[in-house]
Amino acid sequence: MTSTTLGSVSVDIGLLGKYKGTRSKTNRYCVRSPSASLSQALEVISVEEKSTETIRIGVLGASGYTGAEIARLLANHPHFTITLMTADRKAGQSIGSVFPHLITQDLPDMVAIKDADFSNVDAVFCCLPHGTTQEIIKGLPKELKIVDLSADFRLHNIEEYEEWYGQPHKAPELQKEAIYGLTEIYREKIRKARLVANPGCYPTSIQLPLVPLLKGNLIELRNIIIDAKSGVSGAGRGAKEQNLYTEISEGIHSYGITRHRHVPEIEQGLSDASNSNLIVSFTPHLMPMKRGMQSTIYVEMAPGVTVDDLYQQLSNAYEGEEFVKLLKKQVVPHTQHVSGSNYCFMNVFPDRIPGRAIIVSVIDNLVKGASGQALQNLNLMLGYPENLGLQYQPLFP
Amino acid sequence: MTSTTLGSVSVDIGLLGKYKGTRSKTNRYCVRSPSASLSQALEVISVEEKSTETIRIGVLGASGYTGAEIARLLANHPHFTITLMTADRKAGQSIGSVFPHLITQDLPDMVAIKDADFSNVDAVFCCLPHGTTQEIIKGLPKELKIVDLSADFRLHNIEEYEEWYGQPHKAPELQKEAIYGLTEIYREKIRKARLVANPGCYPTSIQLPLVPLLKGNLIELRNIIIDAKSGVSGAGRGAKEQNLYTEISEGIHSYGITRHRHVPEIEQGLSDASNSNLIVSFTPHLMPMKRGMQSTIYVEMAPGVTVDDLYQQLSNAYEGEEFVKLLKKQVVPHTQHVSGSNYCFMNVFPDRIPGRAIIVSVIDNLVKGASGQALQNLNLMLGYPENLGLQYQPLFP
Amino acid sequence: MTSTTLGSVSVDIGLLGKYKGTRSKTNRYCVRSPSASLSQALEVISVEEKSTETIRIGVLGASGYTGAEIARLLANHPHFTITLMTADRKAGQSIGSVFPHLITQDLPDMVAIKDADFSNVDAVFCCLPHGTTQEIIKGLPKELKIVDLSADFRLHNIEEYEEWYGQPHKAPELQKEAIYGLTEIYREKIRKARLVANPGCYPTSIQLPLVPLLKGNLIELRNIIIDAKSGVSGAGRGAKEQNLYTEISEGIHSYGITRHRHVPEIEQGLSDASNSNLIVSFTPHLMPMKRGMQSTIYVEMAPGVTVDDLYQQLSNAYEGEEFVKLLKKQVVPHTQHVSGSNYCFMNVFPDRIPGRAIIVSVIDNLVKGASGQALQNLNLMLGYPENLGLQYQPLFP
Amino acid sequence: MTSTTLGSVSVDIGLLGKYKGTRSKTNRYCVRSPSASLSQALEVISVEEKSTETIRIGVLGASGYTGAEIARLLANHPHFTITLMTADRKAGQSIGSVFPHLITQDLPDMVAIKDADFSNVDAVFCCLPHGTTQEIIKGLPKELKIVDLSADFRLHNIEEYEEWYGQPHKAPELQKEAIYGLTEIYREKIRKARLVANPGCYPTSIQLPLVPLLKGNLIELRNIIIDAKSGVSGAGRGAKEQNLYTEISEGIHSYGITRHRHVPEIEQGLSDASNSNLIVSFTPHLMPMKRGMQSTIYVEMAPGVTVDDLYQQLSNAYEGEEFVKLLKKQVVPHTQHVSGSNYCFMNVFPDRIPGRAIIVSVIDNLVKGASGQALQNLNLMLGYPENLGLQYQPLFP
Repeated sequence: MTSTTLGSVSVDIGLLGKYKGTRSKTNRYCVRSPSASLSQALEVISVEEKSTETIRIGVLGASGYTGAEIARLLANHPHFTITLMTADRKAGQSIGSVFPHLITQDLPDMVAIKDADFSNVDAVFCCLPHGTTQEIIKGLPKELKIVDLSADFRLHNIEEYEEWYGQPHKAPELQKEAIYGLTEIYREKIRKARLVANPGCYPTSIQLPLVPLLKGNLIELRNIIIDAKSGVSGAGRGAKEQNLYTEISEGIHSYGITRHRHVPEIEQGLSDASNSNLIVSFTPHLMPMKRGMQSTIYVEMAPGVTVDDLYQQLSNAYEGEEFVKLLKKQVVPHTQHVSGSNYCFMNVFPDRIPGRAIIVSVIDNLVKGASGQALQNLNLMLGYPENLGLQYQPLFP
Repeated sequence: MTSTTLGSVSVDIGLLGKYKGTRSKTNRYCVRSPSASLSQALEVISVEEKSTETIRIGVLGASGYTGAEIARLLANHPHFTITLMTADRKAGQSIGSVFPHLITQDLPDMVAIKDADFSNVDAVFCCLPHGTTQEIIKGLPKELKIVDLSADFRLHNIEEYEEWYGQPHKAPELQKEAIYGLTEIYREKIRKARLVANPGCYPTSIQLPLVPLLKGNLIELRNIIIDAKSGVSGAGRGAKEQNLYTEISEGIHSYGITRHRHVPEIEQGLSDASNSNLIVSFTPHLMPMKRGMQSTIYVEMAPGVTVDDLYQQLSNAYEGEEFVKLLKKQVVPHTQHVSGSNYCFMNVFPDRIPGRAIIVSVIDNLVKGASGQALQNLNLMLGYPENLGLQYQPLFP
Repeated sequence: MTSTTLGSVSVDIGLLGKYKGTRSKTNRYCVRSPSASLSQALEVISVEEKSTETIRIGVLGASGYTGAEIARLLANHPHFTITLMTADRKAGQSIGSVFPHLITQDLPDMVAIKDADFSNVDAVFCCLPHGTTQEIIKGLPKELKIVDLSADFRLHNIEEYEEWYGQPHKAPELQKEAIYGLTEIYREKIRKARLVANPGCYPTSIQLPLVPLLKGNLIELRNIIIDAKSGVSGAGRGAKEQNLYTEISEGIHSYGITRHRHVPEIEQGLSDASNSNLIVSFTPHLMPMKRGMQSTIYVEMAPGVTVDDLYQQLSNAYEGEEFVKLLKKQVVPHTQHVSGSNYCFMNVFPDRIPGRAIIVSVIDNLVKGASGQALQNLNLMLGYPENLGLQYQPLFP
Repeated sequence: MTSTTLGSVSVDIGLLGKYKGTRSKTNRYCVRSPSASLSQALEVISVEEKSTETIRIGVLGASGYTGAEIARLLANHPHFTITLMTADRKAGQSIGSVFPHLITQDLPDMVAIKDADFSNVDAVFCCLPHGTTQEIIKGLPKELKIVDLSADFRLHNIEEYEEWYGQPHKAPELQKEAIYGLTEIYREKIRKARLVANPGCYPTSIQLPLVPLLKGNLIELRNIIIDAKSGVSGAGRGAKEQNLYTEISEGIHSYGITRHRHVPEIEQGLSDASNSNLIVSFTPHLMPMKRGMQSTIYVEMAPGVTVDDLYQQLSNAYEGEEFVKLLKKQVVPHTQHVSGSNYCFMNVFPDRIPGRAIIVSVIDNLVKGASGQALQNLNLMLGYPENLGLQYQPLFP
């Protein structure tokens, strides 16, 4: 890459030399947030100056939905190129046979993780199941930047991890290093992190509206009731009877009532925000949809606080944010309207019961709830504008 | 009909004379509830003695989904035969052109309601929109038994009706006569009623679990949070952009937050059960499914009350009921498992927050939430076993 | 059962004695086809005379969708009661844990087939996978009536079976005895059969319209092009990645092009009807729907034959049939309009290419395409009216 | 915009000045086709040289799905900026109220077409209904580049237009000028066009595979049977009962048999390719999905031609094409795998009937079948690389 102009990414002669096999990055965006402030724009410029080289990305556990979503997003990232994809059970297979929708992408074949060569990798997205992830990440080269999409490094308290996941934590020292990757809340820490524990989908949709309200002492700590609804992709690509089309279509149900493993992560985040030990009511529901998540959150306001106060607090918290949008008053967020995008839409409504409010937040569970936020984090960790590769508008209808 | 044997419905010679056009009732069940008690069975017998004649049914507003559902259910009713179907905008059309799935049924063509001949009708299901219903019912012959599926006679307080529906009540004297048709709760009153106001779908799914708990003083009156989810058929067959397949599939959203018109009906029922003036939090959500409804209800238990107490109370309340089923402990109700049937499945779960419980109830909004309960009520009003025409098992998958 | 009145099924005192565990048949219909002719009605009467006893039914392979569908249909059968359900992998489980939608039914627990006691069984529906079925049926008591829903006895030619199923036929002598159960075409043979090979779903939807046309020499034998579309339940309840909700919803695709195992069954039926060796083009497609099947069939008409001739031939063939309905001219069959029912709706249309016609037929793949037709056949085999337990109207919407 | 460096698009200081209202283009890609050849890359450079100004785009009929899709795609186009959106019935409304999924985009409010100011528009996408389009386009400033997504200029023969659309053509002189926009087939003509008639979705999915085969004389002209399947968005956003979620979900049906208005367009394209007067059999089916289209095409091969010959011809025709992909032999295209993208995936299979072949092609009806191809065409018409704004990978699951 030879571009030298301030702030530009050239379509230069070097591109002509691109041929299948080199995987040099040739699809590139020059992006800028619609709501970018002056400081952010200046940041873009300095970033662009230094980013004339390509970042080589490994995707561990690339045969699942979050892995595929990483690949989809990176197809339009100006600097990140996938050079390694692992999938133990599909080792040796091409991307086209595992994910035919990515057949036009020039991606490496799957390899078993034990055969992975990390010498040509600068950063990894770890899309492996919880439990196995800790040891694998422990074994990775120390210079790698890592975003872990599993639950393995999300809980600060490793005893709590053991309680909810039924096995002792296998990398407690790494746990201390891991930064929780709720981007808009922990952005500055994430910038400096080497290992980011990417948040779960439910925790993302819940903490984004609640953290600012708790920090502002605007809502009571008691009786926070969260009724959450998720699309089926959150359950992954594993072949389970309960997730067959015939079992899911045209029906809904609650699941994991009081016992869903996202509970401790949610309570940890809300407790941190409120300097307390919060216990919440959290009931997830499975929806007949592939993607999408809504959290409907019922709260008591602190004495004297109004719904307008909540609205204003959220407005202040997310003003200028590209991906978190507080809708106009009375406008109801729909999951359809963020599908395929990294947006979180939210709003707050008065309840019939005096003193209470209803908060609605929607995300795409695979994007802002998983791979999109992971990319947002890695962009930050590597000093890029956080929206690179993420400027997809929602797909509707 | 010539059958005279005690308790029998003969497949007699008279049947041979059936031909297209007579509409005599030839598809018949001899039914008995699986859980019928002795007294109910005896009732069956006496009923059968008197029911050798056919009841002639009118369906007003037969071009909507609840009207079609009445026709589907009556296809297997031993005594009820549809002799009148009205639909102003589809007057003159056959059932096959309005509802092709009923093409094999020998049903009368649609007529405009102003042209309806009630001289050959014994009872009507009124499936008209709210607002117009009051005057139409006021004008019906006084000897007709009526089940009204609209909201027009559900609210005792006509001022509340005016407040929520934006127009004064046009038949206040009939309002006094109307009996609220939540079958399992008001069965004895319904038996003697001439005009039944059939409950809304949300109120049915909510009151069935909450009324016994409130009557037993087992839950607090404050902070009852209801997060309800409905299939799209509840919105009717009107052509609206927002209900197009393209707008609904693969997405969810809240709607009518705090302002849904089922609120006063819900609060009325719960207030009656608790001798208080209850205000509840009620947030409905639109689901990408045709039928089905779930209410997830978050309650505080009264001091000293346990989840087992709630379970036992519901168990007592619905023991022996054919259509309301408390599932085994820990089993989660799914809307799929009641689809097409008149069942309500429910269960109660402990919440993480001490002292709170989570109640889940599911129904098919078009059956127990509308036409099925309407038929259950008319059976009662006419002295028949209430399950006649309702013994459909759920359609799954 | 003590009813003795001619042609009647009494709701008699005997019913009062019913309690959980006896499994005596207490939900009963007295049914009659709307289009029943005099001779059929007389048959009803004689049937009723003899049918005062209950037929005890075994369902082998009861944990799959076709097994569950048998149970759903029999819930309203006046004479058939399930006394045995086998499911090797779910042995010991209750119906409620395997199929929660049937939880209200008083059904026996699953047992492994090796532990099945056939001494209290009069007839079986065999819902097992092909391949294993032959030996199991060979080992059943000889006095049992059997309807086999697998493919194991459908092909007359056991060499063809071996070719398509990759293993030699294990019960060739039973193959000779088996009667192919396409009810409307082979009704008289079915009446006398002990073992019926129930047709596949695609073959049912294709043969019903084509057999009469081929018998009448109205269409050419060459270039019969069948483009068929099926809901996912046809693939069964096995946990396969390709049938997950996430993989199926909102997308379609062809599968098994030229190699689907229903091909030899289709060609056998059409060859028999035309006294020839027919080869057809058959391409199935998987639809994002749980139930339902459409075959769109493109044919060349014989010289001088018109679309009206085809229509008239089908009209003659199915006049008076309860479950096969030729729609009015120009009316297009929809799969939605037969969902949950045993109907086949069909119609024939002129093509733009002169001399060609387009035939559309729709069924519910689990009912007329599997369990419904199986019940229709067992009714016949046991001398009952063939519509018993099958008078469900389609569930729409 | 001030960037002047050869081949670069600068993230320059000018961007900092961006604020709501200027609508200068700030989200930009520097893109290059993965399969771009040397000549194409050189073209990119020259294009970039001249494209330092922004092209101002008008979207006429912006409240429909194709209009919204244009806006979604342009959100990531480096040079095109929407400055005008018309929608008569939604005049005065913001994009957020008409299409909430685009709420983050800085787009102009809707105006009535009669109030549109074309002085700040360089090119328009015309997404209006057929019939009204001709006169509107006739009245547009002559210097505008126009891509018309309606059917109004697709048929060369205006008598044929009148026959199928029931009204005389109102701009016959413009009809002569219009170029048919099937990009891969008519690319060179499109480059020079001022008015492009963008193809219909069915015609696109059908002509892409058939035109090369007909041009190569590899298939017979007789008996081309096309069984096509479409998602519901093809029917637009109009509020029609038949397109309600409740009417569409979980069911399929044929429609417009032999009479669909895409027939003359298909036959025109295939006739041109074969220098003949082709008549085809074309039967569309409505699928329960929002987007996606499959055409399953049954053809007779010319004497001596094999399926491998067809495969090779398609391989030659589309080698190096970015958006049209012939899959590996035996791999079946799925509509899911092109959803949201501009790809057409296709393949060819042997039929059971000797001498016949089966061709499958899939597209997203709103992208390659409408707005995506329209953008591809406008890129060409304005001298840009045709993939600008179109490099979205499919959204799966």
